[in-house]
Amino acid sequence: MFIVVKIGGSVIRRDMDAVVKELPELIRAGHSLILIHGGGFLVNELMNRMGLTPRFITSPSGVVSRYTDLETLGVYVMAMMRINKELASKLQRVGVNAMGLSGIDGALLLARRKDKLIMVDERGRQRVIDGGYTGKISSINADLLKSLMGGGIVPLIAPIAMDGDTGDPLNVDSDQVLEAISSRMRPDYSIILTDVDGVLINGSPLPRVDPGNDSLLSIGEVSGGMRRKLRMAMQLGSGGVRVIISSGLRESPISSAISGAGTHIY
Amino acid sequence: MFIVVKIGGSVIRRDMDAVVKELPELIRAGHSLILIHGGGFLVNELMNRMGLTPRFITSPSGVVSRYTDLETLGVYVMAMMRINKELASKLQRVGVNAMGLSGIDGALLLARRKDKLIMVDERGRQRVIDGGYTGKISSINADLLKSLMGGGIVPLIAPIAMDGDTGDPLNVDSDQVLEAISSRMRPDYSIILTDVDGVLINGSPLPRVDPGNDSLLSIGEVSGGMRRKLRMAMQLGSGGVRVIISSGLRESPISSAISGAGTHIY
Repeated sequence: MFIVVKIGGSVIRRDMDAVVKELPELIRAGHSLILIHGGGFLVNELMNRMGLTPRFITSPSGVVSRYTDLETLGVYVMAMMRINKELASKLQRVGVNAMGLSGIDGALLLARRKDKLIMVDERGRQRVIDGGYTGKISSINADLLKSLMGGGIVPLIAPIAMDGDTGDPLNVDSDQVLEAISSRMRPDYSIILTDVDGVLINGSPLPRVDPGNDSLLSIGEVSGGMRRKLRMAMQLGSGGVRVIISSGLRESPISSAISGAGTHIY
Repeated sequence: MFIVVKIGGSVIRRDMDAVVKELPELIRAGHSLILIHGGGFLVNELMNRMGLTPRFITSPSGVVSRYTDLETLGVYVMAMMRINKELASKLQRVGVNAMGLSGIDGALLLARRKDKLIMVDERGRQRVIDGGYTGKISSINADLLKSLMGGGIVPLIAPIAMDGDTGDPLNVDSDQVLEAISSRMRPDYSIILTDVDGVLINGSPLPRVDPGNDSLLSIGEVSGGMRRKLRMAMQLGSGGVRVIISSGLRESPISSAISGAGTHIY
């Protein structure tokens, strides 16, 4: 099987051993894998350590996201690449031939810089601000990924894209990286590993979500990052990709997800 | 031709535009390139910014080098990968399909951790200390580099190796990366771009050095990093690789070096 897995920053911060431990077995069994990781927490930690203050903005739909000015971008790249190399190192240690890449490398992820962002200020007023260094992925280099996988390499991708016009690095959401790669390469499973057991309703994970069930997106319990993940998963799911949102903290998180754990969107 | 180029940190800090500008032309002309970069200056800057103090030790032969404890290693990886991505971004912008890699990625550079280091303390006494996270390269993955180059990619390598036993990242000298790659892959030219015009004697660059001319290594004017470079270049040169130490700050630094600029060791 061909499986794309996003390892959330919340998993990396708390405990990435379960996922690292599982990978050699999956590869021995002949599965092809692409890994994507997050890691916003380390961006914040490093900024604080450097005397900088992370800045977040709220969109009109209530989504909170990092505001990436030029100085933040430099720290973002450093923190994400550190996580990338740490994870690559752990994978190599267990015999998984990982290759850590950003979207700049081999022009892997091209993006368009967002010119403007709309934010809601502390008084609830909408303001248009410069987009900073945040991007929306416009294309991926699937040939490169296929060629690396054909050579026995496991691509391990940091959420950094390349501005198609300037070559600049851009901050992109790691769920968006999973979406862009999955919608283009159509894996058997597209798995988002996070620190909860799936899309929770009354505290329990929904086993299955129909990609057309938009009403779920307006339930209060499905908010913030999870709402964004679910919206993305529904889009992918309606395109025929089977998406699973599941916990990366349990034993064998990937095979558990494939065997039914977490929320399956298809 | 097949050319391995190391772009020194001194060039990157001062001005890497000349080398970036020259590369598209060299690639259009059909040359194969592997790039290696340094960047110790950014490790120091970032440590200072984080309230850490870079530590250097002096070997009995008078070579000063960074002491890399675990905390320094983390900063080293971040700073080097930031330079790696910045350079990859500049190269992509001018149409060069660079792929930034550390030695961990695809197990590109394997190294042995130095168990112990001998340092000379402030009173001139020799002391044996723990080796920290510094390595000596034991092997390189030439097949991976060839396969990437065969696909039109320019590998851009950061001076981070992988501990062959533990998978840990290790600080390795970027000149040593050039040596390891060149002695294994035997390029037509192995070029070290630095911020001076070559091996200077009375302020002028020696045009040519015989790899057997060891006496040069005891001249006071050839000291520190340059002595280390020259010793390494002599080893490579006596193995039949043509090494050039030249300025990366002049126009078209690579083709100038091939046309005769700098110090040629062969």
